Amino acid sequence: MVEETVELRGHIIDSLLLPKVLDQVLARGAEFEIEQIDIGVRRSDPSHARIRLRADSKSDMDELLVALKVHGAEAIESEDAGLVAADIEGAFPEGFYSTTNLRTLVRFHGEWLEVENQEMDRGIVVNASAGRAFCTPMHRIRRGDMVVVGHRGVRVIPLERQARGQLFEFMGSDISPEKPKLAVVREVARELWKCRGEKKKTLFVGGPAVIHTGAGGSLAYLVREGFISVLLAGNGLAAHDIEYALYGTSLGVRLSDGSLVQGGHRNHLRAINAIRRAGSIKAAVESGLLTRGVMHACVTKGVPFVLAGSIRDDGPLPEVITDVVAAADAMRQHIRGAYLALVVASTLHAVAVGNILPAETRLVAVDINPASLTKLMDRGSFQTIGVVSDAGLFLRELVEFLQKGCSQ
Amino acid sequence: MVEETVELRGHIIDSLLLPKVLDQVLARGAEFEIEQIDIGVRRSDPSHARIRLRADSKSDMDELLVALKVHGAEAIESEDAGLVAADIEGAFPEGFYSTTNLRTLVRFHGEWLEVENQEMDRGIVVNASAGRAFCTPMHRIRRGDMVVVGHRGVRVIPLERQARGQLFEFMGSDISPEKPKLAVVREVARELWKCRGEKKKTLFVGGPAVIHTGAGGSLAYLVREGFISVLLAGNGLAAHDIEYALYGTSLGVRLSDGSLVQGGHRNHLRAINAIRRAGSIKAAVESGLLTRGVMHACVTKGVPFVLAGSIRDDGPLPEVITDVVAAADAMRQHIRGAYLALVVASTLHAVAVGNILPAETRLVAVDINPASLTKLMDRGSFQTIGVVSDAGLFLRELVEFLQKGCSQ
Amino acid sequence: MVEETVELRGHIIDSLLLPKVLDQVLARGAEFEIEQIDIGVRRSDPSHARIRLRADSKSDMDELLVALKVHGAEAIESEDAGLVAADIEGAFPEGFYSTTNLRTLVRFHGEWLEVENQEMDRGIVVNASAGRAFCTPMHRIRRGDMVVVGHRGVRVIPLERQARGQLFEFMGSDISPEKPKLAVVREVARELWKCRGEKKKTLFVGGPAVIHTGAGGSLAYLVREGFISVLLAGNGLAAHDIEYALYGTSLGVRLSDGSLVQGGHRNHLRAINAIRRAGSIKAAVESGLLTRGVMHACVTKGVPFVLAGSIRDDGPLPEVITDVVAAADAMRQHIRGAYLALVVASTLHAVAVGNILPAETRLVAVDINPASLTKLMDRGSFQTIGVVSDAGLFLRELVEFLQKGCSQ
Amino acid sequence: MVEETVELRGHIIDSLLLPKVLDQVLARGAEFEIEQIDIGVRRSDPSHARIRLRADSKSDMDELLVALKVHGAEAIESEDAGLVAADIEGAFPEGFYSTTNLRTLVRFHGEWLEVENQEMDRGIVVNASAGRAFCTPMHRIRRGDMVVVGHRGVRVIPLERQARGQLFEFMGSDISPEKPKLAVVREVARELWKCRGEKKKTLFVGGPAVIHTGAGGSLAYLVREGFISVLLAGNGLAAHDIEYALYGTSLGVRLSDGSLVQGGHRNHLRAINAIRRAGSIKAAVESGLLTRGVMHACVTKGVPFVLAGSIRDDGPLPEVITDVVAAADAMRQHIRGAYLALVVASTLHAVAVGNILPAETRLVAVDINPASLTKLMDRGSFQTIGVVSDAGLFLRELVEFLQKGCSQ
Repeated sequence: MVEETVELRGHIIDSLLLPKVLDQVLARGAEFEIEQIDIGVRRSDPSHARIRLRADSKSDMDELLVALKVHGAEAIESEDAGLVAADIEGAFPEGFYSTTNLRTLVRFHGEWLEVENQEMDRGIVVNASAGRAFCTPMHRIRRGDMVVVGHRGVRVIPLERQARGQLFEFMGSDISPEKPKLAVVREVARELWKCRGEKKKTLFVGGPAVIHTGAGGSLAYLVREGFISVLLAGNGLAAHDIEYALYGTSLGVRLSDGSLVQGGHRNHLRAINAIRRAGSIKAAVESGLLTRGVMHACVTKGVPFVLAGSIRDDGPLPEVITDVVAAADAMRQHIRGAYLALVVASTLHAVAVGNILPAETRLVAVDINPASLTKLMDRGSFQTIGVVSDAGLFLRELVEFLQKGCSQ
Repeated sequence: MVEETVELRGHIIDSLLLPKVLDQVLARGAEFEIEQIDIGVRRSDPSHARIRLRADSKSDMDELLVALKVHGAEAIESEDAGLVAADIEGAFPEGFYSTTNLRTLVRFHGEWLEVENQEMDRGIVVNASAGRAFCTPMHRIRRGDMVVVGHRGVRVIPLERQARGQLFEFMGSDISPEKPKLAVVREVARELWKCRGEKKKTLFVGGPAVIHTGAGGSLAYLVREGFISVLLAGNGLAAHDIEYALYGTSLGVRLSDGSLVQGGHRNHLRAINAIRRAGSIKAAVESGLLTRGVMHACVTKGVPFVLAGSIRDDGPLPEVITDVVAAADAMRQHIRGAYLALVVASTLHAVAVGNILPAETRLVAVDINPASLTKLMDRGSFQTIGVVSDAGLFLRELVEFLQKGCSQ
Repeated sequence: MVEETVELRGHIIDSLLLPKVLDQVLARGAEFEIEQIDIGVRRSDPSHARIRLRADSKSDMDELLVALKVHGAEAIESEDAGLVAADIEGAFPEGFYSTTNLRTLVRFHGEWLEVENQEMDRGIVVNASAGRAFCTPMHRIRRGDMVVVGHRGVRVIPLERQARGQLFEFMGSDISPEKPKLAVVREVARELWKCRGEKKKTLFVGGPAVIHTGAGGSLAYLVREGFISVLLAGNGLAAHDIEYALYGTSLGVRLSDGSLVQGGHRNHLRAINAIRRAGSIKAAVESGLLTRGVMHACVTKGVPFVLAGSIRDDGPLPEVITDVVAAADAMRQHIRGAYLALVVASTLHAVAVGNILPAETRLVAVDINPASLTKLMDRGSFQTIGVVSDAGLFLRELVEFLQKGCSQ
Repeated sequence: MVEETVELRGHIIDSLLLPKVLDQVLARGAEFEIEQIDIGVRRSDPSHARIRLRADSKSDMDELLVALKVHGAEAIESEDAGLVAADIEGAFPEGFYSTTNLRTLVRFHGEWLEVENQEMDRGIVVNASAGRAFCTPMHRIRRGDMVVVGHRGVRVIPLERQARGQLFEFMGSDISPEKPKLAVVREVARELWKCRGEKKKTLFVGGPAVIHTGAGGSLAYLVREGFISVLLAGNGLAAHDIEYALYGTSLGVRLSDGSLVQGGHRNHLRAINAIRRAGSIKAAVESGLLTRGVMHACVTKGVPFVLAGSIRDDGPLPEVITDVVAAADAMRQHIRGAYLALVVASTLHAVAVGNILPAETRLVAVDINPASLTKLMDRGSFQTIGVVSDAGLFLRELVEFLQKGCSQ
């Protein structure tokens, strides 16, 4: 039998940290004994617990300690993080520590360094000379990088319940389609309004259905009026938006009267071709070819966008980054410091963004298909709200409420 | 080999009747030979075809002729329909003819009688003395009723494409969730507007999610303003509507500000209990207990409603018809002559109404779950449009457009 | 400010009871102070907490105490439950206590009586002379019944985590469609095997898709071999099963070779008619008309079944209980003491059974549509596992594994 | 008014070509007159129709003729296809002809050239010196390429109903989840069996859920036994397969006993890292690191695979083609001449493959989510069957039936 003692601090009852720790211990066939517990008498008071763990083997204990780390449990006797130099380009050494999307610290020469650029499923590289630590994707590892191995000397700071906003407080992470949508629309509107006022960064991640369902005008409004700081999408959203701007259709909807017309799909290809002939979306705006829509709003308002390629793309449009590793890197640059991500009718980009967002960034995902939302929740993103709703009608209501200054 | 000759008349090319007939023949391993065909040169011209069929046996041919009947193919040599007296209460004689929801005629003493009260999956009873024929459910058969057996002397009139309205023309029966909802909302609004103007009967069939998603006010508007002639629902819709009216909540939504509150479910039971104490919904309106909402609108505007019971009901409310056979009979009385049925967020009632509606009645079904719509389409209802959308936002937009007089 | 002190006992950390209590307090804008807490040092040790609550008003405090009751929190100073005589047939007095599906006790003359026939959303009637308390649906209330009002003197015993079995331990209540189905199939098979060995009551609740997807033979096997104690279904499942038995089809599948044939729907009506002519399903088995299938297995093996009517039924079959209140009452009689309920491809009956099952009964629900499972989870049933899978292939694998004696 | 005469030949009634043509004419507000029609008297006899069209303007007529072309209608007076030299790299000239996935011919110097490498949504480049025509994606256009513009001199050969196999005959393109899966499984098995015997090329397109749902072993069997000619997938399927092979888990399922274990996600990253350290999947097989699973079977049996990158990829694995345009080009090379594509639990790759497959290739898509299938059907792929089923149980049954030599 191997024994170890861990400590938990903070709102460990209220934020469910203590029960989750005990749950993990039992689920893995280990045992616990609560050596000491001090529980705050009021909500604002922090609590503290010291727990003795017993597992069958050293490797079981190691596994357990890694699992508990996510809930903030930390071994009482601390040591420096293990570091091994990368021996191969683009790969971690054996035994590398794999990150979560939670704030993380590593102990280096007795000091706790905050890990920068936190993402999930990456490694940690310590730059000894600079005294800094970086969350680093596998493909960026260079030979000689000092990579954290094992789990000793790594501390994870779990999200506490208080960190969540009003919206996240009342929604939970429930994705029932029978929820009243109007209330959610209004809370999201209020969050966007507050973000704009407080100059907090907001991301919009969208799939082509944003345009098909007729919400292009609403999204263009959000961009123009400063509610969106960055647009993350693919070839589809941009192509359908441009098709709409150039020919008045998106998969067969005529802009002027909402009626359906034939031949929509051909327009899609014509639109992509027209932009490729112009050289780029930006050039098409500047030459006066592209005069309205989401992409036009981004270019004229200076809202940056990343269009990531996918194998199903037609064309693609010139600004599309066809190398997916480069595209993910471009997304990374833009998401740093984001407060809120609004994800609408997108599965692929939603999961991609979910993978690289730190846990602190709030995420509201809207999709008519509950399965797309479930997939996003499954990926371990914290602070995520899933709303089962029609993208078009949702965004329309959102804009209407923003236009009224978020008052009834 | 058994041979038979059938004829087809009308818009047999344009309405896909001829291809469907040939398809059926081949799918059943039979053979055809087109003996004669005259095709109208313009759309308005009817066409005519005479087709020789060959099947392996008499019973195969009989099966084939039944299947072709739905597409309007009729044996050339006509005879009177076979009639057998029912020998048992509540059951058809062996070999009974099972109806479709299409207009049907039976030959009796050389004359073609139009079958009244047309529904799908029923039998046909001929009242010889009155010279009338009635579509009759199994449970209503009385001993001695003259029931049509076999398929001879029965003529089915297929729907022709022209019979469909504008909305049905452009939607097809497609249920893709990526369709632009605003265009559909507006077409539905225009249909309702036209129906009110032309005094055509409209049905609203709804599930409890109409209320949960916050659309109760929109539905009450439709009832109050005369856009709905009959409401078909269950205990759930009425109970949640009344809960909302009495306590301001429906599964936890507060009416005044759209915020979510706790304890909603208990209110549901309290609401039902309050109405049971009052004696009935009607009595609760008259006594001043119930002062707003969908059911209040029905009672005060004299819009009839049928609340059909189901085994999952709490209470139920006094007006709920707990015997399902009686409930279906009550629905039958109210749907006769309906021009349009709007079905929102309902599976159970939607299928029930779909079963008893004649094919001529247009049906627009709105549900956030495509599977519910697929089920409805599967049941063989013609002239059905499925819209994958959020019930609450859909009805809100619908009412907003109606309030503007259906103009932008 | 109103103050009150409550106590919590048992596995209050491990079973998340303490955090849930604190969560409720804060969510309702009230405050807490943990006056005393003793936490068991080992898993098996019970814990105890005493919590001081502060709310703005007496009514807020009352609401709060009701909400906390579900998590086992109990006011420290106990008094007898309030009792009011029912003044109206079929309705509770104002202020009635509304039940959960958890084990409940009421204090009467200083003694705690266990409430019998526990169900959710009912009232509690105390029979003073017998010294017993009964969970009672609204429609069964007779004038003069002594009904519990308010929440004082009512104690609810929350489920503790330990009560859940192996299967429920590892599945959680997650309904992700990407879970490995084979592992779940085997766990369910082991549970059924154990139940048969230990003579524990098992329920099967199924929709018509059980038959359509080709699982009729598998279900008949479960009935014949004693794995199912009671079958709860509707007209649809029975009618399709009988159609299959009589004509070899269910919505067009031929039994012998799995190929699809035409005309399935007509066979459905013929099958119902044949049974109505025979008088009943039982009579059809006895006369030799019905010789195989699920219903045949029930009749010959003496496995009771309840067929509850719904408004979409054709026929219906003679054994169908068309009054839904009577049908729910019949279901009640059969579910008492059930250990496990297996719910397959059913929404309506699943929710109905979920409403009347006590929390202790384990429930495994299988449906290809995640939304149907979500609906079941939403209804507040504890100990529920949702499996997104094809009914036919799931039951086929289940039977195959049972036939091997649950060993690989 | 502009007039034009078109001709239709072949099974124009039976394959619904004539009705579709008339439908298009009317849907676009144009008029038709059937000048001549000769209908084959037996199924095998071809028919012929000559139809006079009237539209409001030259551009309406042009639009109409393009739309009718897909259904095989061809202007009676033929001329050479219009050709314009590309003026810009990677873009078509204005007015380019946009292809369908149907067999296409272009008239060049009075001769009809068959277009090679047929795909949907591409342009056509005529190589004058070689006398050949090629379907060409936008990004491959080089300055000076002679590109077909307008629609004159382009003939499209619609699929006729007879071209579909047995499986496609009885399934239709219906995607109802309530279909009996066993019958479909068996038909698919028989198709695979026949393809192997007749050395017809088969594609397998799969998403990661193939592995999560436990079907990796079944897929590896299909590869090993020669039922699959090419594997098209992404980083996810390969990474989960290798995780399973190396550590016995895929998202937490232990191979040996089907039980669930913790820490699955970390294994996923470890597996990718291990392969990156080995250099490639192929190298890992050769070095003895990778000894089982799908990718192992591909490498050892010489079955080619294309792993296309996506922005949500971790790692990725060395063989993954991260540039999506290059990945699509790699897929193109492998799909030429494919007879059957089996698509399981994949949305992204399914749509991508659907876009580049010619219409003749049969496609069977299996997914538990009907919406994924709908998306595939929406893209205009002909000869597509959608099966709503659990990937794991479907493939397990498929392999079991193949192992029995496709006999009961």
